[in-house]
Amino acid sequence: MTVSEADVRSQRIRATVHAYLDAVAAGVAADIAALYADDATLEDPAGSEPHVGRAAIAEFYNGVEGTENNTELLTLRISGSTAAFHFRVVTKAGGQTYEIEPIDVMTFDEDGRITSMRAVWAPEDVRRR
Amino acid sequence: MTVSEADVRSQRIRATVHAYLDAVAAGVAADIAALYADDATLEDPAGSEPHVGRAAIAEFYNGVEGTENNTELLTLRISGSTAAFHFRVVTKAGGQTYEIEPIDVMTFDEDGRITSMRAVWAPEDVRRR
Repeated sequence: MTVSEADVRSQRIRATVHAYLDAVAAGVAADIAALYADDATLEDPAGSEPHVGRAAIAEFYNGVEGTENNTELLTLRISGSTAAFHFRVVTKAGGQTYEIEPIDVMTFDEDGRITSMRAVWAPEDVRRR
Repeated sequence: MTVSEADVRSQRIRATVHAYLDAVAAGVAADIAALYADDATLEDPAGSEPHVGRAAIAEFYNGVEGTENNTELLTLRISGSTAAFHFRVVTKAGGQTYEIEPIDVMTFDEDGRITSMRAVWAPEDVRRR
């Protein structure tokens, strides 16, 4: 892989991460799932039973439908086909506002689609504002 | 696994991450390698050829011997047997000071030893101070 091919890959990954955070904020499960490869895996939180395949992943994201979310990218690192990023999600639900700042680890295919996602966070990281 | 078993595991992982950053700052390769399991793997940067086994890992860390480093944990997230952490390393070498803030992703065994490490950073993330 040449330097410019690596740059293109990195730019695709960066674009997908931004699209992911925008889609989570918008709260449309199908739009989030569309960023994943057909046979992708999702572990949220990391270590839990993986959701395998885009249909199962779309079903997982049904949980964000109808919620009001703000997302903010805090730090993004990219190396090869892996991205790790620290971000903030602020969710309004049931008259309460919750904030969490997970670190997600994703891998990507050559087209910049997510092939695996592992969300690293624990229940005690959730703050009520 | 009960809640308290999960807490113990999380505490062990947290202790290893802090010991890792202390050992990197001290710059003694054997002390860093001692935090890894016998058959651990290390990818630094993620996507590069993995170093497999503690001997190969100790050899990799020979690069930090004799350097003057400061390390600072910025954010640590733990989920199951996985930790992801954003940290700062400031290195003085050859009259220059370099700073980098990678996100490392590690998995751990039941004793809190590192079973895999992937360092997510790119050359353009290195800053000269």
